[in-house]
Amino acid sequence: MNYGIVTKVLGNLLLFETAAFALPLVVAIMHRGPDIGAFSYSILITAAVALPMSRLPRPKSDLRVKEALLIVALGWLLVSSFGSLPFLLSGSIPSAMDAFFESVSGLTTTGATIIDDIEQLPEGILFWRSFMHWLGGMGILVLALAVLPMAGVGGFHIFKAESPGPISDKLVPKLKDTAKILYTAYLGLTVIQGLLLYFGGMSVYDALLHTFGTVGTGGFSNYNDSIAAFDSSFLRMVIAVFMVAAGVNFSLYYALYQGNFRRMWRSDELKLYLLIIMTAALLITVSLQASNYGSVWERFQHAFFQASSFTTTTGYTTTDYEQWPEFAQSILFFLMFVGGSAGSTGGGIKVVRWLVAGKLIGYELRKILHPRAFVTLHVSGRAVPQETITGIVAFLFLYGMIFVVSSVVLSLLEGVPFISAASSAAATLGNIGPGFGVIGPGETYSHFTIPSKALMSLLMFLGRLELFTFFLLFTPAFWKQ
Amino acid sequence: MNYGIVTKVLGNLLLFETAAFALPLVVAIMHRGPDIGAFSYSILITAAVALPMSRLPRPKSDLRVKEALLIVALGWLLVSSFGSLPFLLSGSIPSAMDAFFESVSGLTTTGATIIDDIEQLPEGILFWRSFMHWLGGMGILVLALAVLPMAGVGGFHIFKAESPGPISDKLVPKLKDTAKILYTAYLGLTVIQGLLLYFGGMSVYDALLHTFGTVGTGGFSNYNDSIAAFDSSFLRMVIAVFMVAAGVNFSLYYALYQGNFRRMWRSDELKLYLLIIMTAALLITVSLQASNYGSVWERFQHAFFQASSFTTTTGYTTTDYEQWPEFAQSILFFLMFVGGSAGSTGGGIKVVRWLVAGKLIGYELRKILHPRAFVTLHVSGRAVPQETITGIVAFLFLYGMIFVVSSVVLSLLEGVPFISAASSAAATLGNIGPGFGVIGPGETYSHFTIPSKALMSLLMFLGRLELFTFFLLFTPAFWKQ
Repeated sequence: MNYGIVTKVLGNLLLFETAAFALPLVVAIMHRGPDIGAFSYSILITAAVALPMSRLPRPKSDLRVKEALLIVALGWLLVSSFGSLPFLLSGSIPSAMDAFFESVSGLTTTGATIIDDIEQLPEGILFWRSFMHWLGGMGILVLALAVLPMAGVGGFHIFKAESPGPISDKLVPKLKDTAKILYTAYLGLTVIQGLLLYFGGMSVYDALLHTFGTVGTGGFSNYNDSIAAFDSSFLRMVIAVFMVAAGVNFSLYYALYQGNFRRMWRSDELKLYLLIIMTAALLITVSLQASNYGSVWERFQHAFFQASSFTTTTGYTTTDYEQWPEFAQSILFFLMFVGGSAGSTGGGIKVVRWLVAGKLIGYELRKILHPRAFVTLHVSGRAVPQETITGIVAFLFLYGMIFVVSSVVLSLLEGVPFISAASSAAATLGNIGPGFGVIGPGETYSHFTIPSKALMSLLMFLGRLELFTFFLLFTPAFWKQ
Repeated sequence: MNYGIVTKVLGNLLLFETAAFALPLVVAIMHRGPDIGAFSYSILITAAVALPMSRLPRPKSDLRVKEALLIVALGWLLVSSFGSLPFLLSGSIPSAMDAFFESVSGLTTTGATIIDDIEQLPEGILFWRSFMHWLGGMGILVLALAVLPMAGVGGFHIFKAESPGPISDKLVPKLKDTAKILYTAYLGLTVIQGLLLYFGGMSVYDALLHTFGTVGTGGFSNYNDSIAAFDSSFLRMVIAVFMVAAGVNFSLYYALYQGNFRRMWRSDELKLYLLIIMTAALLITVSLQASNYGSVWERFQHAFFQASSFTTTTGYTTTDYEQWPEFAQSILFFLMFVGGSAGSTGGGIKVVRWLVAGKLIGYELRKILHPRAFVTLHVSGRAVPQETITGIVAFLFLYGMIFVVSSVVLSLLEGVPFISAASSAAATLGNIGPGFGVIGPGETYSHFTIPSKALMSLLMFLGRLELFTFFLLFTPAFWKQ
C-alpha cells in the first residue's frame, strides 16, 4: 500500500470541501446569521489539515485497486467528518454523534435527520445540509466512473456495458470527457428544476435547497413537514418528476442529447424502472379512499410522489402515508428495496440488479424444460458475462445479509417493533431516509441511542459505496501485502 | 404429453391414499366415533375414482420430464383434494375451501389450521390430519429421489452431490434401494420418538400424533395450545430434538449407520444448520427476562424449541413468543426463511442454498482483490458446478419474488398490518404454520377470506414442490409440443 498517494489524494479532496464551505458562508453572511463564525472556522480547520496532506510529492506509480478502494472509503469518511464541523461549531447540533450522523446522511444522499425542529436552524446551516446532498450526488457519479470499475462491482459492469457512447472501457484517457458529460446532465437537471420550483412559487433559497435534495436523491428539506409544507400540486409534481429523472442512468441523457432515441428505448433497466414506479403509483392510487384525499387526481399525485420518492431512495414526503391502507404501505415498504438505476444518483439496490435476478428465473425455467439448450442472459440487447452475473448475485445476497443482521441488532438496541427496526435498517442502508413506525413521516432519528446511530451511519456508507468497497476494508486479505 | 401414463400413475397414487384411509377408520372404530361413516365413504369414493384410472394399460415408453412434473403437481393436488373428504363428510369442517386448506396444510407438512377448537373433533379426524403430515413427509423423500432430479432443480443437485453413497446418479436401477434406506431412517425416527413420548407420559394416541407432526416437520397438534398443553420439559426437549433431527439430510443417517462419521463431519450444510439453530436459541435465551420464565434452563428450552420449530418449518409452539422481546421476535421472523436441510422432510428455502449464497459473497470479495485468480466454490469438500449455482440463485430470487407479491396481495385482501401479511405469506410458502400478528401462537387461519385461503393453499404447494415444479405448469413453454 502506497500511503503517500492515499494521503495526497485525500488532502486534495478536503481542499475541495474547504472550497465548498465558501457557499454556505456566503449564505450565512447574506442572512447575517449566527453561523458565519462556524463556517469561517470550518474553513480554517479543514484547510489546516488538507494543505500539508495535499503538498506531499506527486507519486510516480499509478493508483492500484487497493489504494483506490482505500481512498474512496476514507474519503467519504473524512469529508463526512469535516462536514459535521459547521453543525457542531454553530451549536446547531450539540452532540458529535448527531452531527456526524447528519453529515453522513447528507453526503450519502440519505436524508435521515436527527433534527427535531429543522426550522429553528440558521439559513447557512440548512444550506450546507442540503448542499451536501448535491455534492454527494456528484461524488457518486465520479465514483461510478473512476473507482468502482476497478473494483469490478457488478452494477458498474452493467453501467459500462450499457454505455458504449459516453463511457469508455479504458477509463483513464477519456475520463475527463465522460465526467464532463455527466456533470453537464447533472447541472442541467439542477438548473431546470431550480427554475421550475422558483416559477412555481418557491423562494430562491427554498428552490435551491429542494433542488439539491431532489437531483441528489437526498431528501433533506428546510421544513419540518418536508414537501407537505408546500400545498401546491405543481411543486409536488415537479419534485416527483425530477426524483424520477435523477434515478435514471445519466448516460441515457447523453444518448438523448445525441438524438439516439433507440438506445433509450432499448434500455431494459429504464423500462423496468418506470414500470415499477408507475405500477406502484397506480395500485396505491386505486387503494386510496375518498377519506384519504378529495379527488382522484390528488390521490394519484401523492401516490406517484411517494412511489418515486421510495424507489429513487430520495425520501421526501408529501403526506402521512402511515394513514394509508395496509396494502399501499406494503408496496411502499418493498419499494425501499428497489433503488434507482445504475449510473444515477439514486441509491439502494438498483433496478438493473433485479432485472438480472428476474432474468435468471426465466433462464432456469427454460433450462429445466430444455436441459441441453444454450441460453444466454441479455440486458438491453447485450449478453451479460457470467462474471457480472455472479457479482450482482453476490451483491444482492450481501445486501440481504446486512439488512437482516442490522435489523436484528437495531431491534436489540432499541427494543422497537419489527417493522420499525427493519425499516430503519432498510432506510439507512438504502439511503432513503424515512420509513415506518419510529421513523415514519414526521418522525426523526433523534431518539435512537448512540450505538444505533453509529451502526446506521455505517449502513449509510455501506449502501452508498455499494457494499463491497467498504466491506473489503474489513477483510484480512485486503491488508495482506 | 402422454396423458395415459399420467392418469395411470395418478390412479395408483389415489389407490395408495384409499389404503391410507384405513388407518384413521380403525381409530374411529376403536373410539366408536361419529366419523366412521366419513372414512368409509371416503374410501369408497376415492377407490371408485382411482380404480378405473389405475387400470389403464401399462405404457411402453418411460416417463419424460414434462410428464413427471405434471404427475407431481397433479398428484399433490389430487391427494389433497381427496384427503379433504373425511373433513367434509364428517361435518368437522363444513366449508369446502376450509377442508381443502386443512388437507393441503397437512399433506405439505405446513401445519396451518383453520380449526378454532381442535379438541372438539373426533379422534379419527385428528388422526388423519396428523397422519397426512407423516405421509407428506414420506412423499417429499420420494420426490427428492425420483422426480426432482429430472427437473434439474438446484436443491436436488446438491442433495445428489452430497450423497454419493445411498443415492445413485442413475436413479432408476437403484431407486428402490435408496428409497428403502430413507424410509428405514424415517421409520426409525418415528419409532424412537413415539416411544420416548409415550414413556415421557403421553398416551399412545397423543404420542403417535405428535410424532407424525414432528418427523414430518408438520406441526398439527390435537390440542388447542399445541405443545404448551404438556407442561413437561422432557416432552418439550424430545420434540425439539426430533424436529432438529427431521430437518437433517436423511442420507447422513445412512452414513452414520455405515459408521462413516467423516461424511457427517464434512457436511457443511449440517454444520451451518446446527449453528443457526444453536446461535438463535442462545441469543433468544439471553434476551429473555426473568419476567418471561423462571429459570435460565426453562428460558433455553422455549428458546431452543421455537428456534428449531421455525428453522425446520415445523411450527409447534410451547409458549406465546409474541410476549418475547422484539429482538427475539425478529430472530424468529428471519428464521422463517432458513428452512431445513436438503433431503430432509423440512420445508422452506433449505440451509444449503444459503450456504451457497454465502460462499458467493466470499467468492466475489476474493475476485475483487485478485481479479485473475481462479476460484471455485466448494460445499462439503466438493466443487459446485455453475449450473447448480445458477439453479440455487434462481430459486432464491423466485422465492423472494413470490413472497413479496403474495405479502402485498394478502395485505390487499385482508387489510391486516404488514407483519401479519408478510408472516402469513412466509408461513405458508415456507410450510411453517404459525407466524406473527393475526397468525400468532394461539391464532388460526380461520378468519381469512376465501381468496386468501386459496392463495395460501397455492403457496403451500409451491413451497413444498420447490417452486419450479409448480411454476412450470403455468408457462406456455411447458404445454408446447
